[in-house]
Parts: sequence; structure tokens; C-alpha cells
Amino acid sequence: MIEADYVTTDPDLLEAYRHDRASFVTAGRPVALARPKETAEVVRILRYAHERRIPVVPQGARSGMSGGATAVEGAILLSLERMDRILAVDEVNHTATAQPGVINSVLSAAAAEKGLYYPPDPGSWEISTIGGNVATNAGGLCCVKYGVTSDFVRELEVVLADGRILRTGRRTAKGVAGYDLVHLFTGSEGTLGVVTEVTVALRPAAEKPLTAVAFFAAPAVACEVVSEYLSSGWRPSVLELMDKACVDAVSAYRDLGFPEDVGAVLIAQSDRGPAAADDLDAFAKIARDHGAMDVFVATDHAEAELLIEARRLVGIALEKLGDRLTDDVCVPRSRLAELVEGVAAIGREHGVQVPCCGHAGDGNMHPVVIFDAADPDSVRRGQAAFDAIMALGLRLGGTITGEHGVGTLKQPWLETELGEVGLSVHQAVKQAFDPRGILNPGKVIRRTPS
Amino acid sequence: MIEADYVTTDPDLLEAYRHDRASFVTAGRPVALARPKETAEVVRILRYAHERRIPVVPQGARSGMSGGATAVEGAILLSLERMDRILAVDEVNHTATAQPGVINSVLSAAAAEKGLYYPPDPGSWEISTIGGNVATNAGGLCCVKYGVTSDFVRELEVVLADGRILRTGRRTAKGVAGYDLVHLFTGSEGTLGVVTEVTVALRPAAEKPLTAVAFFAAPAVACEVVSEYLSSGWRPSVLELMDKACVDAVSAYRDLGFPEDVGAVLIAQSDRGPAAADDLDAFAKIARDHGAMDVFVATDHAEAELLIEARRLVGIALEKLGDRLTDDVCVPRSRLAELVEGVAAIGREHGVQVPCCGHAGDGNMHPVVIFDAADPDSVRRGQAAFDAIMALGLRLGGTITGEHGVGTLKQPWLETELGEVGLSVHQAVKQAFDPRGILNPGKVIRRTPS
Ligand SMILES: Cc1cc2nc3c(=O)[nH]c(=O)nc-3n(C[C@H](O)[C@H](O)[C@H](O)COP(=O)(O)OP(=O)(O)OC[C@H]3O[C@@H](n4cnc5c(N)ncnc54)[C@H](O)[C@@H]3O)c2cc1C
Ligand SMILES: Cc1cc2nc3c(=O)[nH]c(=O)nc-3n(C[C@H](O)[C@H](O)[C@H](O)COP(=O)(O)OP(=O)(O)OC[C@H]3O[C@@H](n4cnc5c(N)ncnc54)[C@H](O)[C@@H]3O)c2cc1C
Repeated sequence: MIEADYVTTDPDLLEAYRHDRASFVTAGRPVALARPKETAEVVRILRYAHERRIPVVPQGARSGMSGGATAVEGAILLSLERMDRILAVDEVNHTATAQPGVINSVLSAAAAEKGLYYPPDPGSWEISTIGGNVATNAGGLCCVKYGVTSDFVRELEVVLADGRILRTGRRTAKGVAGYDLVHLFTGSEGTLGVVTEVTVALRPAAEKPLTAVAFFAAPAVACEVVSEYLSSGWRPSVLELMDKACVDAVSAYRDLGFPEDVGAVLIAQSDRGPAAADDLDAFAKIARDHGAMDVFVATDHAEAELLIEARRLVGIALEKLGDRLTDDVCVPRSRLAELVEGVAAIGREHGVQVPCCGHAGDGNMHPVVIFDAADPDSVRRGQAAFDAIMALGLRLGGTITGEHGVGTLKQPWLETELGEVGLSVHQAVKQAFDPRGILNPGKVIRRTPS
Repeated sequence: MIEADYVTTDPDLLEAYRHDRASFVTAGRPVALARPKETAEVVRILRYAHERRIPVVPQGARSGMSGGATAVEGAILLSLERMDRILAVDEVNHTATAQPGVINSVLSAAAAEKGLYYPPDPGSWEISTIGGNVATNAGGLCCVKYGVTSDFVRELEVVLADGRILRTGRRTAKGVAGYDLVHLFTGSEGTLGVVTEVTVALRPAAEKPLTAVAFFAAPAVACEVVSEYLSSGWRPSVLELMDKACVDAVSAYRDLGFPEDVGAVLIAQSDRGPAAADDLDAFAKIARDHGAMDVFVATDHAEAELLIEARRLVGIALEKLGDRLTDDVCVPRSRLAELVEGVAAIGREHGVQVPCCGHAGDGNMHPVVIFDAADPDSVRRGQAAFDAIMALGLRLGGTITGEHGVGTLKQPWLETELGEVGLSVHQAVKQAFDPRGILNPGKVIRRTPS
């Protein structure tokens, strides 16, 4: 193995870095863990691995939900967590440049200090890295208005499979010189190159949002409200849905004073300053027209924070229910009600609980399959439900993953979504960037036999 | 040649379709012109060409400014202009689906009819096709607020070099299943595949804009106003600059009642409804603080249209000055003043006129080199000035093309911008999609010898 202070073969450390947060994914045994501080060190690792055809698994904070950062057999784990310097926040051109290991919330805070705003806010924003966010094209709550990570990435430094350094993209607002490799790397889950520097666009600080919550008897009605509200042209900055099981779990975890017998909750925000009240009035009206049990507009920032907190608590609250497999399907918003009802039916059919919440405004839901990892039958039923949900998403004109990525968890399903021609084009792209197949092998797509 | 009613070898027609709008670009002699109406016909042409290694040059409306649609020797010209049907405008999910030959303004009108808005508005919007817009990733006036074509493309049908049909992307608001090929095709100028269907995102209709104009003694001051206005967090929907030569040319073409001795004009719009007045007040204040000669806010829509018309007339007005080579560099907005002053200096140095206007809010300027095509010395000086402007753009941290694309005109310069690693990655991508090199050969990049 490479002799360097940033490379270790300590078995405890290797074990600690073996997994990300995906369930149902088996990890291989890594041969080393590298934690470089500089691009030159990344280059050295990749040259070494490339020469010897050793697999390399890039890792950010390993908060990924699909096994993208999970070890493969015989791999060098390449953690970027120590490349954690913010290199610049440019107040005039509204950009920030950072090493990949910078935590999303740290970058956001640095922007905020200069009156600027970095919108992409995955639920993991306090733990996940900007490099991981780029590699997965992370979404979040604000995406319904501001877009996802790829809408903000302007320039990347990437170390290629063979150790060459590529700079791609640009710092200007526009540019069409050559192919758009920035978007190609964004969301490629460490299979095309290792991101070692990121320049993102920032926005002027947004106004403090107004927040409203609406309670419904059933989630399908909430979905219709989402669809009608957005098609009428309103642009909320957040529009989140929680079904009954999520509400109950959160209420059990922390009493939020939500009414009983709630079938679904919608949380809406608008950050349009003085016009935000109009946005939420319209939301309230449409909700009431659809028979909402109650609609409530937060009158101050603390109340608003509490409502958003309710949504952010779902993950932790569901931990009490058992082992969890978080799905992530995205459908056109006109099909949202069918998705949510279909998920409930799948849960009944397979005899598993599937609480469902998510970024309803984007049509991006996270059905969480609850199972018991110690009970093989429960695992089997959980897996079957998980698969059925992806099939449903595709049937509704959607995608198997709105933001969590493919990793190993959804690799077989990706082939269904891409189809034969799509798969072969993906393989050709992978081959062009990584002819020896050392970058995160087995993730996203199978390689072509070469 | 293929026997089909959509293929012709008529010499007059071949001649008529040989060029786009680029200057300084020599066209080869095509062997046929194909004008298919359906994807299946495109497939047939590409299969035929692929088997025989015949070059294929995709064409939209040939309004391109960089030779991307210009014939290469021995090529089949593949015009998509007859694939001009709008397939759907989805009022709930806010998308439109069209064949590639639909004219931008026709698509925009179809969206507007349903209360929706397709923002990308290149100056050529009344003549250029949506397929050409995708293939060049076209920008326009509204991009400073709404983004460029690639920010709106969701799903593409593409016929690959060998005739296989690829569907890529999705109709959902979000999705990370596999590599982002949609952005890779967008802006690839017909070198990676032929776009045969496009689904774009639409927005709710925008409010009618308010418009303001500010007059300055010199363009550098106007550029400082642009930079300060935008860094202060204002979000105009249009922010355009015209220098003295452009203003004079337009005034000679049509009297707009602009004051005399104007050194530069900024035109700003805001479409934030009631809040637009605030946006333009802030613009006026910053302009005055920088010593603007005058600032004027249009009081009605007709006045506003007149001001925007002034900007749109630049192209036609400059035709009176001689032959023109329109450059298109984009720099970070903090460097805009240096760009504009540098362009003026280059004009003086080479003894050519270089009127300059453009999308100042994006840092994207169009210096127009005026020359006399009949005078070899003038041509030589014009070319030298054109090159010097691109070198200046790169020196200021910018790009050689903000929106017009590389084509053949800027192909050598692209190599400078990309650098050695960037070029070789581009060649690997080209090789992956078009191993026989039949798609628009010689455009954008040189191929690797294979
Ligand atoms: C509580 C919780 C909430 C979450 N909420 C959201 C959410 O709202 N939206 C969302 O999109 N995701 C969410 N996620 C998933 C996850 O946090 C995101 O995918 C995140 O972007 C991963 O970042 P990371 O630094 O942890 O990367 P990792 O998990 O370490 O890696 C993710 C993938 O990126 C690759 N990678 C990492 N760094 C690099 C690099 N520098 N170069 C190349 N490849 C690299 C890895 O190989 C892997 O394939 C959530 C996860 C948790 C645990
Ligand atoms: C007056 C005027 C103003 C302009 N203003 C702007 C502006 O503001 N912003 C801007 O960005 N551009 C502008 N342009 C340039 C030009 O109009 C744009 O580049 C436009 O997008 C080209 O569209 P087109 O249909 O004419 O394509 P063409 O010129 O025919 O082709 C352009 C490129 O795309 C390829 N192509 C075309 N159709 C397809 C397809 N279906 N599949 C694959 N490849 C294809 C061609 O091979 C070529 O490389 C302007 C041009 C003029 C004449």
C-alpha cells in the first residue's frame, strides 16, 4: 500500500468507514483507507490504484442512502472529509469555492455571513459534504423553488481515474464552450471521477419565510392540493407532506400539539417577503376548498421553525418503529395522489408499514419501509414492498430516485428505467472516463465487459 | 443516396442550405439535403450515413453564429425544420413537448395561451428552432433572471450516430437515476446525436415588466452599475448594455429620442409585479450615484416595448456599417468594465470598429467586429481583433462563448480554453457517442485519430 501519513490499513478504521446509511446493501472488505488533504494526494492515490487496477470508493460523510459510499471488496476507501477548507466566498460574483469535504451547513453559514444564500438543503445538511452533495446531486426542502445541487454547480476540479486533473465548467454566469461535463459529473456518484474542488453559485439572502400547515383526513387530498396549488402558478419555497404514520411517529417523539386523527399534513413556506402572505392565503384557500380539517399560519419565526422541525424529525422518529429502508421515488406532480395511495396499498399487500413523507412540491416522496432485520420473512416482505414502490413510480411516469441516487441499492432497477439503449450509452460513458473500471465499481451501472 | 421524398440532391436547394449566419467560415459541398418529418426517417438517414461513414450536419433554422450548421464536404444536411409539431403543453405539470423544428416563438406562444411561460428568448426567437436552441444551449435577454435553455430541458429523444433511439431525462421535477445526459446533449451542437423531441419545463406566466433606461457618458461606468446592482442582490429580468456605437447605429436606423453624446445605455426590466418599482428605483439610484446622465422609467407598456426594441434593433442597425463578425464572450460580472474597455482598446489597436452590446447582467457581451469582406487587409485586421477579444475574455477569467457556441469558428480557441486534459476528455466523450465521427465532424472539437 502507499506509504503516506494519510493512508491507513488499521482494521478498526477500515470497519468504521465500510458503510454508508443504506440498508439491504452488503459491503466488501476494503484494503486501505486514504484521507488526503490536498488534490496532489488524491492524484497519487488514483495513479497508484489505476496502475494496479485497485478499486477506489470515494466517500464524503457516508450519509448516502443507496450504498454509493459503501466499500467494495479489495477497495481503497478514499475519504475526502479532510479536504474541508472553504477557499473563497465571492461577494461580487456570488460564488463560493470549497474543497469537497466542507459540510453543507458550514458552506451555507459562510455564505450567510456575507449576506448570501446557498439553497440546496438536504435533510443531512448538517452532516453531509458538498462533494457528496455534488456526487449525488442532492436535493432538499428548498428545491421546489430554488432547484437542486446541479442547478448551482458552476466549476469543478476532478481527479480522473488515471490521476489526471481536470478543471471543467466556469465561474461566469453563462458559457457554452464545449460539452457540459459539470452536469455529467454531478450525480455520477463517484463513478466518473473524484471531485476535489467545487465552485457553486450563491443567491442573495432570501427573506425569512412565512410558514403554514394544513391538516387533512387523507393524504390523497393533500396531494391534490399540492398539484392544484402549484399548477395555479404559486411558488412556495417549501411544500412538504407527511402522512398519518409520520405524524403519529413524530407526535410520539415530541408533542407538537397537532390535532388527533390527522390523515396527512402539508407544510408550506414562502419567502417572498411582503408577498408571502398572499402565497400562504392562496395555499390556505385551496386547502380549505379541498376540505382541509384545519389550516394554521405561523405568526412568528419560532412557531414556523417548530413546524419545519416536525418535518425534519420524521427520520429520527421513525427509528422507533424498526429497521428502515428509505425509498425515494419522484413522479410528475399530477400523479402524486396515485403514488401515495399506491404506496399504502403496497404496504397492505405485503404486510409491512410504509410511512410516507417527502418533498411533495417536487413529486418526490420518501416511502419508508419498516421491517425487522432479524426476521428473514420480514426482510423479504420489506424488500418486495420496496421493489413494488419503484415499479409503481416508473408506471406513473416517474423515476426510481428523485435525489438519493442509485448506488448499489437500485442498480438493477436503473437498468429497467434506462432501457437497453440508455444502459449501453451509460456504459460507453463510463468506459470513456474509467476504462479500467476502478472508480466505485458495481455502483450505478454494471460495466460492459471490455 | 437514400430514395425518399424527404431527401433531395437538387443543387439549388443544397446551395440554399449550405450556410448558417457565421462569418469567416468556409462551407463544404453537401451531397444531399434530408428534411424528415418523423423520428423514423431520421433513424433511416443516420443508419445509412453510419454504414457508409458519410458526414451528417444537423440543421435547425441555420440562424447559428458560429458555423455549427454549415455544410462540411460530402455531408448529408439533415434539416429538422419539418419536424415542427408541438406535441403537448401540460398545464398541470408545466411542461411542453415538441418536435425539434418548432420555432421558439411558436412554442412560447403555445405556452402563453395556457397561461404559461417559456423564458429562454434568444434574439433569434422568431426564427430559431427549439432543437437548435437545445443544441446550442441558447441564451437570451431573460436569462439573467431565468437561466438559459439547459435550465429548462427535462427530457430528450435523441437519434444516436448509429441510428439507435435514446430517450433520456425525465418529466419529473427532479431525478438522479443515472448520468445527466440531457445536459450533455444540450449545447453539444449536433456532434453527439440528433435531437428529435424535446420536453421543456415551463413557468407560470410572468407579470408584465416595468422598464427603465439609464444613459452614461462611458460604458465602463455602466458596467460598474451592473456589477453593483446585481451584487446588492437585485434580480432584474433583463439587464442589457449598448455602447455608443450601438446607440448611434440604432438612432440612425430609427429615431428613439435618445439624448445626444450618450456613451452607453443600460436597459433594465423587472417583472416582480408590484415590487418591480422597487427594483427599478434601486437601479435608478445606483445609476445616478455613478453619475448617470439621465435615468428614465417607462410609464406604460408601449414605452417599455420601445426601449427593448432599441436593444433588439442593434443587429439590423449594425448591418449598415459593413460586414460583421459577432463575438460572444462572457466574463464574471466583476470584470465586465475591463472587458468593455479592453474591447475598445483592441478596436483602436487593429484599426477596426467594434460596437459592443449584450447581456450585461450575465457578463455576456457581443462585440461586433466591423470589416470589409472585399478588402483582404480589413479582413485580416478584423480577424485579429476577433481573436484578441477571445484572448481578453479568457484572461479575465471568462469563456470564449457565452451562448453562440463553438461551431467551426471557435474550434481552435476551444482547445485553449479547455486545456490538454479537457480536450482529451472531450475527445473521449465524442468517441463514446460517435465512434465513426460522422456527426458534424470538425465542429466543436477535432476528433482523436482512432
Ligand atoms: C438524515 C438524512 C437525511 C437525508 N436527506 C436528504 C435529502 O433531503 N436530500 C438528498 O438528496 N439526500 C438526503 N440524504 C442522503 C445523503 O445525505 C446525500 O446523498 C448526501 O449528498 C451525501 O453526502 P455525503 O457527503 O454523505 O456523501 P457519501 O454518502 O459519502 O457519498 C455519496 C456518493 O457520492 C460519492 N462521493 C462522495 N464524495 C465524493 C467526491 N468528493 N467525489 C466523487 N464522489 C464522491 C460516493 O462515492 C457515493 O457514491 C439524507 C441522508 C440522511 C442520513
Ligand atoms: C439575429 C440573431 C440573434 C441571435 N441572438 C441570440 C441570442 O440572443 N442568444 C443565443 O444564444 N443565440 C442567438 N443567436 C444565435 C442562434 O440563433 C442560436 O444559436 C439558435 O439557438 C440556433 O438555432 P437554429 O434553429 O437556427 O439552429 P442552427 O443554426 O441550424 O444550428 C445550430 C447548431 O445546432 C445543431 N442543431 C440544430 N438542430 C439540431 C437538432 N435537432 N439536433 C442536433 N443538433 C442540432 C447544428 O448542427 C448546429 O451545430 C442569434 C442569431 C441571430 C441570427
